Amino acid sequence: MNRSDCPISNALDHLGDKWSLLIIRDLALFGKRSYSALQGSAEGIATNILSSRLASLEASQLLTKAPDPADKRRQIYRLTEAGKDLLPILLEMILWSAKHNPGDLAIPDDLVQMAANDRAGLLARLRERIDSDSF
Amino acid sequence: MNRSDCPISNALDHLGDKWSLLIIRDLALFGKRSYSALQGSAEGIATNILSSRLASLEASQLLTKAPDPADKRRQIYRLTEAGKDLLPILLEMILWSAKHNPGDLAIPDDLVQMAANDRAGLLARLRERIDSDSF
Repeated sequence: MNRSDCPISNALDHLGDKWSLLIIRDLALFGKRSYSALQGSAEGIATNILSSRLASLEASQLLTKAPDPADKRRQIYRLTEAGKDLLPILLEMILWSAKHNPGDLAIPDDLVQMAANDRAGLLARLRERIDSDSF
Repeated sequence: MNRSDCPISNALDHLGDKWSLLIIRDLALFGKRSYSALQGSAEGIATNILSSRLASLEASQLLTKAPDPADKRRQIYRLTEAGKDLLPILLEMILWSAKHNPGDLAIPDDLVQMAANDRAGLLARLRERIDSDSF
């Protein structure tokens, strides 16, 4: 299954490419759960790429797909526990960009502050938000 | 310069793809500094991909290239401060793999333990190692 015995290479095999991690971001931080919501991302993901990345993230067991109880024709995408555990990687990317590419990036000040003061607390809050139905 | 105002998308633009992050790994964690050492990685990077990724990482100011003082025909690659600041992202990938893909992965037990007990101390030690000439 693993193409290398290196844990970093392994993580990258499951993440695939930039688009996969942006889909994880949309599910983890922006509360998106439907195909159409994911398609509306700022980066303008092509529909064939979105489909293929969702399928491979599902195969890697980072997300699940299930019919929406409210509308069975619609699929709802949710992060698995392994998918939610990617949050610290996303957080470190945000902090890296906050430090090295300030300026026009949309980085909430309080997030950077909280990460410095109480990283574990911040991650716990972000995770709770993913699990809440209102998100 | 930035194709999106999202800090995660920005980080991924600079990292490029899997190969870029494996090159960063080799410089940050395996002490590799020459083209030939980088080419000898377990994942078997093709020489044209290695060249193009080194050039784009240099353009993104994540690494520098300079002639080896001991042998001017040889180039030495070193991480910049921004490149070294990718260490926490690599660490989180290692920890994610340690949790979700245990088994055949080469994950030092003491690294996982240290990350849990003293994450800041571990990152400081890894960073010192990058800066030491013997690494």
